[in-house]
Amino acid sequence: MADYERIGIIGAGNMGSSMAVGFSERGMAVSIWDINAASVDRAVKWAKEDKNERKDVAGFHDLTEFAKSLGSSRRLFLFSITHGAADSVLDKLEQAGLLRAGDVMLDAGNEHYRRTERRQDRLTKHGVNWVGMGISGGYQAARRGGSLMPGGDEEAVRSVLPFLRRVAATDRRTGEPCVDYIGPRGSGNYVKMIHNGVETGILSGACEAWGLMKKCLGMENDEIGKVFEDWNSQGELKDNYLIQIGSEICQRRKTPEGDGRGEGVGTEGYVLDDIVDKVVQDADNTEGTFFWSVEEGADRHVSIPTIAASQFFRVASADRAQRLKVVEALHIPQPKLVPSEDKAAFIETLRLAVYASFLCSFCQGLELIARASKDENWNVDLAMLVKCWRGGCIIQSDYISDMLLRALSNAAHQRIMNIKLIREVAADLHRTYPALKQIILKATEWDAYVPSLSASLEYLKFCAGPKLPTQFMEAEMDFFGAHSFDIVGGPDDPGEVKKGKHHYEWRPA
Amino acid sequence: MADYERIGIIGAGNMGSSMAVGFSERGMAVSIWDINAASVDRAVKWAKEDKNERKDVAGFHDLTEFAKSLGSSRRLFLFSITHGAADSVLDKLEQAGLLRAGDVMLDAGNEHYRRTERRQDRLTKHGVNWVGMGISGGYQAARRGGSLMPGGDEEAVRSVLPFLRRVAATDRRTGEPCVDYIGPRGSGNYVKMIHNGVETGILSGACEAWGLMKKCLGMENDEIGKVFEDWNSQGELKDNYLIQIGSEICQRRKTPEGDGRGEGVGTEGYVLDDIVDKVVQDADNTEGTFFWSVEEGADRHVSIPTIAASQFFRVASADRAQRLKVVEALHIPQPKLVPSEDKAAFIETLRLAVYASFLCSFCQGLELIARASKDENWNVDLAMLVKCWRGGCIIQSDYISDMLLRALSNAAHQRIMNIKLIREVAADLHRTYPALKQIILKATEWDAYVPSLSASLEYLKFCAGPKLPTQFMEAEMDFFGAHSFDIVGGPDDPGEVKKGKHHYEWRPA
Repeated sequence: MADYERIGIIGAGNMGSSMAVGFSERGMAVSIWDINAASVDRAVKWAKEDKNERKDVAGFHDLTEFAKSLGSSRRLFLFSITHGAADSVLDKLEQAGLLRAGDVMLDAGNEHYRRTERRQDRLTKHGVNWVGMGISGGYQAARRGGSLMPGGDEEAVRSVLPFLRRVAATDRRTGEPCVDYIGPRGSGNYVKMIHNGVETGILSGACEAWGLMKKCLGMENDEIGKVFEDWNSQGELKDNYLIQIGSEICQRRKTPEGDGRGEGVGTEGYVLDDIVDKVVQDADNTEGTFFWSVEEGADRHVSIPTIAASQFFRVASADRAQRLKVVEALHIPQPKLVPSEDKAAFIETLRLAVYASFLCSFCQGLELIARASKDENWNVDLAMLVKCWRGGCIIQSDYISDMLLRALSNAAHQRIMNIKLIREVAADLHRTYPALKQIILKATEWDAYVPSLSASLEYLKFCAGPKLPTQFMEAEMDFFGAHSFDIVGGPDDPGEVKKGKHHYEWRPA
Repeated sequence: MADYERIGIIGAGNMGSSMAVGFSERGMAVSIWDINAASVDRAVKWAKEDKNERKDVAGFHDLTEFAKSLGSSRRLFLFSITHGAADSVLDKLEQAGLLRAGDVMLDAGNEHYRRTERRQDRLTKHGVNWVGMGISGGYQAARRGGSLMPGGDEEAVRSVLPFLRRVAATDRRTGEPCVDYIGPRGSGNYVKMIHNGVETGILSGACEAWGLMKKCLGMENDEIGKVFEDWNSQGELKDNYLIQIGSEICQRRKTPEGDGRGEGVGTEGYVLDDIVDKVVQDADNTEGTFFWSVEEGADRHVSIPTIAASQFFRVASADRAQRLKVVEALHIPQPKLVPSEDKAAFIETLRLAVYASFLCSFCQGLELIARASKDENWNVDLAMLVKCWRGGCIIQSDYISDMLLRALSNAAHQRIMNIKLIREVAADLHRTYPALKQIILKATEWDAYVPSLSASLEYLKFCAGPKLPTQFMEAEMDFFGAHSFDIVGGPDDPGEVKKGKHHYEWRPA
């Protein structure tokens, strides 16, 4: 921290205020500014009420005073404002002549990586370093520490690493902070975006498993919660954050006092049972990373069907009013209750299937990052990235990250583009394929919802298929589009990803 | 054609030359120019060799001479060049002072709609009308007539409609040409892009069906060809272009003379069996529309899982060399031969499942177009669009278009956003759900490839699900992200597509 006297936080919303309190609790001096003076006052008041004595949070209504408070040497700004708004703050700083060469500006929002790159380009002439930093850990990460993924100018990022290491979450096993230099340009935002794509896949797999236990096995929420607790305690889903919090959610009953803020108040039943089944992010355009991930997979031609299926599932859930009309119009079977099923055996099969699907999401996400890193010359170190995901983050999955870390630390895998070629990953996908298949058979029979699990099964099949029916698709495209093909056993089989050398004139003009 | 003396074709590649010949065969006068003089000469030579006496194709090496040849009144240019190249030709025309107010420029390439809109904006100051025209019908459409989807300034498009009606394919039932004014701006390119998205879904469903018959039922190609012939002759897949050409492909044997151009030469076996199973478009970046469709679905939050699954399937097929390594590493079961299956019954079930999946692709594509049309104020008439798809185009599916035409012509459906709410569509999805489910059960049991068929089954389930497991996803997102939810039976159930009003503090900070 020698380089920086104070941290200058721009934005005193929920996130910015939490960071101000969290940083000051860790002994750091903080200045905070917001265009809304009341927000600044609230943040300062919150910090003062906090019991930690060492806190130093100074609030500013004036941008110039705020900038001055950060001292005369190199300054560190931390932007915590809704995406898009950063440019207008930069305009103000520029117009007031407050930009200074060497300054580092950390953007902690879920910004699109291309917009980060535009800001980096814009600030080059001022010598100011704009750093797009992905943060995972949810709304409490600001205070408790999250997984931090800063990308931009290497020297600038390294100059703030000592600070970031103090505020990041730690890997419980090694005590190491979950932050490192990701790479140049928008790479920090990029890996966070794809982290959220993987998150979508995992969220979907988990909710599909919950649905099978709840609707088909007829289990009570607290019983499902115990299953998740068990899954989280050992084996392939060990220390998996979304399974762990799922176990808490399932077991949370309504109480007369509720959560102390007026929610979950009642004398019986579960908080979960009161929640409507519509996930509106991103259908309401408040997020971004989830559908951007799908767009990136499409744009870079990386196969990410589990992530896409999960996204299109949640998107379809959002408009519940319209969905209820379709329910009535289509009138198709609903998930069946099957009390005769051997529950213990089914649940163990389900656990392995869920793991297989989670692993598919990781493969798809990491392969997309590897592709982007190569396309953009970012040179992202996947082992280091997985290390950043060891603690504090939403997709934390210790069994998977242990396995990936061991493999990716091997020099042979430094430039790996296909994660499924890692021996341990391949072995686990091979081993869990029968479970995934079994779950799809049962779920299909029972009319249960398994969009991400079934997309994962198909993904495994076609990624590991030596002779795909796309042979027929290729013939059709050659028929109508003269797309051309290669010849089985010829010099271009398997060949490269290039237009084939043969066209058969199926129906002469 | 009163408005236009000659058609000025820019680009003498395969497509441009075919159009020159095709138009002149229909009695139209054509001028043709290309930056490559040899291509111009080839096109003129081809036109002269053609037996039709009325042909009038004049070739030009000089752009100014070419422009002059189009007369002194309103001129019609038709661009047939690879996408991206149009701007440099426009630069040349602009620099040479050859742009004239009132001119209409038809772009017949698969251009991205946003680039079309940029060109429209660029040409506004010259009073020149740039029209983005989608064409479906494959490489022979230029000569034989295709389905044409022009979008841009309404007056300009209507001024060329008499010409377009002469060169478009016709709806065999009504004799009407398959072309009409789609809408303003980039709408013509947009609907063609999504047409290709639907095409991807249909191509995938057809190849998955072929794979099941070939690998699991152990049928010979010509036997499968007869099945496709039968499917195409009546019922739900009647006059379905991709099924029809599939029947020809399956029955095409190699012969000593081959296709007369050196392909398919042999004494036994099928042409199809020689084709490698890698579909490289778009992994090789030569196309666009297929993955743009997936990006659009993601960006506009319209659920298009069948289209996305098909795209990520073909993308995964492209890198066969890497795939063969994954085959070895994962070593999972391959599709099983099951000779004991009741073949006739299975094939009938398969037919209905394929139809259900095709219908899902149409629903997804049309809903995405409806969404875009509303977002962009294009006011696209879906009934008119389906009419354009009645002949000449790759996704021609007469049973489906008959049904959609009847329904969409009804005033009540003029602003429909959800195609599944059309009574006949809903009834058919209800009726074919059991067949689709049955095929997924069998295919899963047999380890066959059904990415688009299974995505369609899941799509139907979750679009018509009154109580989805996304309830659990919503709870998880509220736990870590304070995303908020609505309360079952509360005033916002079903409510709008908006952030919920309730947050439960699952784990106080």
